[in-house]
Amino acid sequence: MQSGKKLLLNAFNMNSVGHISHGMWTHPQDQSPSYSSLEYWVSLAKTLERGKFDGLFLADVIGTNDVFGGSPDAALHGAVQVPINDPIIPISAMAYATQHLSFNVTANLTYEKPYLLARRFSTLDHLTNGRIGWNIVTGYLDSAARAMGLTEQIRHDNRYDMADDYLDLVYKLWEGSWEDDAVERDRKTGRFTDPQKVHRVRHNGPFYQLDAIHLCEPSPQRTPVLFQAGTSSRGRDFAARHAECIFMSSNNQNVGVTKSIVDDLRRRAVANGRAADDIKIFVGVVVVVDKTEAGAQEKLLEFQQYASAAGGLTHFSASIGEDLSRYALDEPITLQSTQAMGAILDSITRYNPGAPWTVRRLLEQMKLGSRNLPLVGSGSQVADQLAAFARETGIDGFNLMRVVTPQSYDDFVDLVVPELQQRGVYKTDYADGTLREKLFGKHAAHLSHRHYGRQFRYAPEGNN
Amino acid sequence: MQSGKKLLLNAFNMNSVGHISHGMWTHPQDQSPSYSSLEYWVSLAKTLERGKFDGLFLADVIGTNDVFGGSPDAALHGAVQVPINDPIIPISAMAYATQHLSFNVTANLTYEKPYLLARRFSTLDHLTNGRIGWNIVTGYLDSAARAMGLTEQIRHDNRYDMADDYLDLVYKLWEGSWEDDAVERDRKTGRFTDPQKVHRVRHNGPFYQLDAIHLCEPSPQRTPVLFQAGTSSRGRDFAARHAECIFMSSNNQNVGVTKSIVDDLRRRAVANGRAADDIKIFVGVVVVVDKTEAGAQEKLLEFQQYASAAGGLTHFSASIGEDLSRYALDEPITLQSTQAMGAILDSITRYNPGAPWTVRRLLEQMKLGSRNLPLVGSGSQVADQLAAFARETGIDGFNLMRVVTPQSYDDFVDLVVPELQQRGVYKTDYADGTLREKLFGKHAAHLSHRHYGRQFRYAPEGNN
Repeated sequence: MQSGKKLLLNAFNMNSVGHISHGMWTHPQDQSPSYSSLEYWVSLAKTLERGKFDGLFLADVIGTNDVFGGSPDAALHGAVQVPINDPIIPISAMAYATQHLSFNVTANLTYEKPYLLARRFSTLDHLTNGRIGWNIVTGYLDSAARAMGLTEQIRHDNRYDMADDYLDLVYKLWEGSWEDDAVERDRKTGRFTDPQKVHRVRHNGPFYQLDAIHLCEPSPQRTPVLFQAGTSSRGRDFAARHAECIFMSSNNQNVGVTKSIVDDLRRRAVANGRAADDIKIFVGVVVVVDKTEAGAQEKLLEFQQYASAAGGLTHFSASIGEDLSRYALDEPITLQSTQAMGAILDSITRYNPGAPWTVRRLLEQMKLGSRNLPLVGSGSQVADQLAAFARETGIDGFNLMRVVTPQSYDDFVDLVVPELQQRGVYKTDYADGTLREKLFGKHAAHLSHRHYGRQFRYAPEGNN
Repeated sequence: MQSGKKLLLNAFNMNSVGHISHGMWTHPQDQSPSYSSLEYWVSLAKTLERGKFDGLFLADVIGTNDVFGGSPDAALHGAVQVPINDPIIPISAMAYATQHLSFNVTANLTYEKPYLLARRFSTLDHLTNGRIGWNIVTGYLDSAARAMGLTEQIRHDNRYDMADDYLDLVYKLWEGSWEDDAVERDRKTGRFTDPQKVHRVRHNGPFYQLDAIHLCEPSPQRTPVLFQAGTSSRGRDFAARHAECIFMSSNNQNVGVTKSIVDDLRRRAVANGRAADDIKIFVGVVVVVDKTEAGAQEKLLEFQQYASAAGGLTHFSASIGEDLSRYALDEPITLQSTQAMGAILDSITRYNPGAPWTVRRLLEQMKLGSRNLPLVGSGSQVADQLAAFARETGIDGFNLMRVVTPQSYDDFVDLVVPELQQRGVYKTDYADGTLREKLFGKHAAHLSHRHYGRQFRYAPEGNN
């Protein structure tokens, strides 16, 4: 992190009971089983705004973690991302209760019609006054494909080709259909919109076709802030072109691995005609914090009593597409699937490189219900470690995972945020404006001129 | 209306500037141009709850009213349902600000994946505590089809065959996948859900296929309250099987036409093994009310200064699929399209049966910006007319269209609601419970046992 730069911070969450730290819903203070009430979400949003979080990042998965044991039973038993509700629904209630907090919501383009998705995000952008981001995913679960009537999911690289085509289409709707001054709202003339300034979008791509005007007038950001999380080579290419924010898994605070990915992503962005810091990079982190280091260690032990390593293993099996129930406890794991393997091996090998991976070792690592190792300490210690990690790796901020909710967020707001602020590495107040302006500065409400999507903006004749 | 029966009441609205009474956004008091702010929606919801409205009915259209003149220009000019935002997005903010008001939201099944739509409505039902209805539409605009990459829309009857298949699929998810007591939430055993009580849904219909469990735990109503609006013969068959509430266009208070449709709908319901009053029938109505009849007439004249008959004609052209810009002002209209023609002719012929229809006559009828003739009078007069119309036709309630918003709703709440209450034909307080319980009585949170969809409920072995 450069001097003067402020750490960015999202809460990482899901409209479900278990998200990352599985089993924690059994903790007496954990409120995640109330995920289906609006009070739960509004209260969370207020807590995050109190802590000046930039955003609430709402992950999502369509389908169930049904690789472990070849059925959804283990996931159902432990509430491992199932049941799971639609992440978009609670947003307007949270937006109404807050002023600055943004909402970065996941939508899977493989299964959503682009014309409707474009309208949905324009509406969100309008109603939140520009506090919306889209986490672009293409999905990885066969169970989702079967739920859509396909026999198996579309091949990985092909999904990204479809995603490129999809993005071209929605850029045309968001950027190119309505001119900035198309809407006149003139009660005197009775002309609400100047039809000459609304352009028909024609798209005839390899996967998607459309002939229509966009249904929404220009929203504060037009294109929502684009988030993306893939770290495969094809995923990084996609991100270098489209993403304004990238979410990386924790890699368990491994500086070397993280830095090499960060450097590569920024290089690819520059190769795409963008500036290196046109991409904001967030790393996932699990924090257990208390007033003292001893208190935090005690809290960790207390949390571990409720965590479910079995839940973690169920989730991990689906993430890597490998049924780990078929291994004996001490049998070396020989992974067949290459899916997401690079990042995953990076993230687990730091724990004890060299020794062969077994289910027993995984279970040991998953003492908080996931493969993510927590950062444990006093507020001051955690703040130091986060700042150092950001400085050494060149990332821009963190996606804070919950352990016990809302306690994890309250603890962070009460104990870590003031320490970060004291160090001058975290904002003491929100900047005005849309999410994109908060991230990239004043007058940056719209896609940067260096961004690929900007070419789809309507330009006057002769400048098109 | 039977004695003791209470009138039901929805506000009819759309996430757009112009909805039915076109041009009224030019009125100095009209706030519809603020449709893209949450304050607008939350304030409206509070007004409706003050008036003990049963629900806010959110219409929607995907595509533009581009039949008139063969382009969307006229619709854009006058804000005739374009721009239009996604109706689902503001619901959670309104639900958080109210306790009893329900939300009947339109979703077009032709363009939404059933697996995702099922999750979206389950989520809405959870977060609103069962205050959600789904207005099932199949769409009627070619422009929507072109926006989806099709060259023209799917044929009318075929759309209903698809809808039948779609409904079977979502019933299986909502009713059949999770048993009532599947979720244990047991912090002691660590078992959130009993996997034995979650059933895999297999659907292999002519149009839709799926193999998955539903992603959501059972919501208060399971299946949202089902609204439907088609009055073609095929549409009525569909409604008699699926709909719990039917929305009919105003027919301009024509008792005979309305009663014959109502009787036919109830007959069809009974033929489907249901009770005649298992279907609640709502009729659209435009009301202009003031303290006195003279005041109301004056208000009508004032409103008419702002209305746009051209906007009404633009909307009407799209509704009937006929470009009325091709007719000279006094040339008799010879309609080519049969689409929705029955209901539409019913609704206009009352005005002046016999004389041939011309654009001039239509424009005269559209003095409030739509083909709907307003009911004008003092609160007492309007209450009498509404009660009499309901009694004579056998309908259950009204969908109140807005002229100037929120004034139309405020006027109705302040002037008509107390009169209805005095007459004993309108509730003085909300009943407890979900929307379905409010409509059909205590312990009726779920689909009636007489409803077609109920057969998809999971039943124990031997009773399946």
